[in-house]
Amino acid sequence: MTPMTPMAIPNSPPSPLDPPPRLLMGPGPVNAHPRVLRALSTPLIGQYDPVMTGYMSETSALYRQVFDTGNEQTLLVDGTARAGIEAALVCLLVPGERVLVPIFGRFGHLLAEIASRAGAEVHTIETPWGTVFDPEAVVAAVRRVRPRVLAMVHGDTSTTMLQPLDGLGEICAELDVLLYADVTASLGGNHFAADAWGIDAATAGLQKCLGGPSGTAPATFSPRAVAAITARRQVEAGLREDGDEENALRIGSNYFDLAMVFDYWGPRRLNHHTEATSALYAARECAAVLLDEGMKEAVERHRLHGCAMAAGVRGLGLEVFGDQEHRMNNVVGVLIPDGVGDAAVRAALLADYGIEIGTSFGPLRGRIWRIGTMGYNARKDAVLTTLAALEQVLRGAGAKVVAGGGVSAAHEVYQDDQDGARQGAAL
Amino acid sequence: MTPMTPMAIPNSPPSPLDPPPRLLMGPGPVNAHPRVLRALSTPLIGQYDPVMTGYMSETSALYRQVFDTGNEQTLLVDGTARAGIEAALVCLLVPGERVLVPIFGRFGHLLAEIASRAGAEVHTIETPWGTVFDPEAVVAAVRRVRPRVLAMVHGDTSTTMLQPLDGLGEICAELDVLLYADVTASLGGNHFAADAWGIDAATAGLQKCLGGPSGTAPATFSPRAVAAITARRQVEAGLREDGDEENALRIGSNYFDLAMVFDYWGPRRLNHHTEATSALYAARECAAVLLDEGMKEAVERHRLHGCAMAAGVRGLGLEVFGDQEHRMNNVVGVLIPDGVGDAAVRAALLADYGIEIGTSFGPLRGRIWRIGTMGYNARKDAVLTTLAALEQVLRGAGAKVVAGGGVSAAHEVYQDDQDGARQGAAL
Repeated sequence: MTPMTPMAIPNSPPSPLDPPPRLLMGPGPVNAHPRVLRALSTPLIGQYDPVMTGYMSETSALYRQVFDTGNEQTLLVDGTARAGIEAALVCLLVPGERVLVPIFGRFGHLLAEIASRAGAEVHTIETPWGTVFDPEAVVAAVRRVRPRVLAMVHGDTSTTMLQPLDGLGEICAELDVLLYADVTASLGGNHFAADAWGIDAATAGLQKCLGGPSGTAPATFSPRAVAAITARRQVEAGLREDGDEENALRIGSNYFDLAMVFDYWGPRRLNHHTEATSALYAARECAAVLLDEGMKEAVERHRLHGCAMAAGVRGLGLEVFGDQEHRMNNVVGVLIPDGVGDAAVRAALLADYGIEIGTSFGPLRGRIWRIGTMGYNARKDAVLTTLAALEQVLRGAGAKVVAGGGVSAAHEVYQDDQDGARQGAAL
Repeated sequence: MTPMTPMAIPNSPPSPLDPPPRLLMGPGPVNAHPRVLRALSTPLIGQYDPVMTGYMSETSALYRQVFDTGNEQTLLVDGTARAGIEAALVCLLVPGERVLVPIFGRFGHLLAEIASRAGAEVHTIETPWGTVFDPEAVVAAVRRVRPRVLAMVHGDTSTTMLQPLDGLGEICAELDVLLYADVTASLGGNHFAADAWGIDAATAGLQKCLGGPSGTAPATFSPRAVAAITARRQVEAGLREDGDEENALRIGSNYFDLAMVFDYWGPRRLNHHTEATSALYAARECAAVLLDEGMKEAVERHRLHGCAMAAGVRGLGLEVFGDQEHRMNNVVGVLIPDGVGDAAVRAALLADYGIEIGTSFGPLRGRIWRIGTMGYNARKDAVLTTLAALEQVLRGAGAKVVAGGGVSAAHEVYQDDQDGARQGAAL
């Protein structure tokens, strides 16, 4: 279990993969669903095999349901969640165009930076970490800046906040602004409705509420976004045929050129990259698992276990971070008690209980832990085990904690939920 | 097995993943090694778990052996092989700098296009598909163009050719040119020696001779390349601390900013993307499988089975494509006989035998098939089965083929090899 330094093993074969059991209760990655792990080991097939193109079409259809959209262009970007973000922004933004990024955590900064590297003129508004924007403030900024793209993070794990997006679509459509949403951390665990909210582009990742491994980015694009992107289409020189021409608005990246990716996923099946087959298998299974449960039910499950975790943390006598009215269902921020070492507590949880919780970035570094309840780990046993272990570790670190307070507060949430369900059934 | 159209299954869960058995004898992807498939289903762990960072370090160490280099910066780019290419080129080339791309097939065009989108001034030289460059011609072009980067494809599956790279490193070092090699199709199946050849950057993919799934790109960077890249380093705004500043030469992509990726893989462990854990497991296992066999032995195996396939194709009475002195070990181009339909033969091979061979691009479209013998499929049974099936399908399509001629010519190659080995042992 000690990490080896590269120089120590130059010529000996490594030992077989055998990671220790871990309960991943940080802000992601979380444990993948067992069905997804099994899907990953499915044998490969060729990229133009009709079975493979069938799987690609099925994956599109499944993610239409996950994103709640009728968008034909619903597909995977082959890379981590960040690849999905960059693909969307470099394709939607022609260099020199304005983008507005409301920043309420680390990932707003990331969107701004990616857009800036894409050559866009970046305008930002900020709100303190732990809060979200009043949609009216965003609308006012859109009217003032008149951007080509409004780029919003939906759920930002760095602060645990969930930004309301409903209502922004109208103003964007009115002013010909394209509305992009980064739903990496939120999708599957919080209500999201691409079409109803007028979202033009949204990108996600598997390693949060979707319960899979990082490495591929589900994404969806509205007809308006598709028109903007395909206007920049240019077929690769090595594949060009009659009628395929150079384009002055050509997208600045080949790998992230979604016009090409649309051609690869669409009926033309024009080769771009070689689809990451195993990652596609995983993404398809993530969606299938989620839809077998039902999107509404999955969101409700995340709500329940997130509430239980937050109640449990408070029951231990700890304070939760940020505006709880706008907290994501799937992550709770916990103020680190005075006199307790951030790293020492996390190390003890990992070493003695095999449980991982998250540290923080930027202004919250050393101030809060982030505890996730997402995907496969949005489960009662995962919540109670984490609270029980955290109590012991904090006590060992000298913190004042309420004995049994975490678990019993979480139990109460579960009890209330059952009572509510019974009452509902009796009505 | 019929591909479903997205609209046909909007609300029903898809059937479980159950692709038909396929023997993938095209230019890649090929069947993954069973050990690699099993590695893919290994449970996830957190990205800063000491076991995970240990696996990352081990993966670096393993790929140092695969690339035959001492380069500290040897790592994975999270995306398909094409992502590795783009990462290398956008990081090595500052917009406006000159790049020289010798083009001998589709992937040279790809390098030129990626470099062009990265803002480089692109210079190309070309040689007809099916031939390679005399290294002297490349050296002369380097002296004439004086590029910042010489970007070379090593093996180009579109033409089956393998470009000699040995000898280019000296002139590049002398003229302060960075030498980049795209070894996606060649690595593991053809001799490659990054340090001995003076290669400054090389990127690969798993889906060819490495025997894994597409989706992550092993890459290595010499100290000279690392210096050029880290001079462009800029820490993300959301993570910045004292001393981290803006950089005028900032790399044009965030996702492909290798200076950040070096910080993530290196001792600073500064978060960039969330490493694609399952893909890393696969990449680590691919290297372990290869090194268990031995790099020299793996290359020799590819040589043997490639020779057997080429001999078998000729034994059937067909013609092989291109300069056979410079053919990659792992792909054979086969001229499509007159009067035989390209797609019909491939479809029959797939439908009746479960065997996939490849079609072609650009100037070779409809003229040749490409038959791969790579990674796990560089095996005698795979070669003989493919030749036996191809004979039957061609006969069925009305082509004149030598009965038993393919299999017996391949057998002769295997027999000669055994005889040679016996003679060698007797000396």
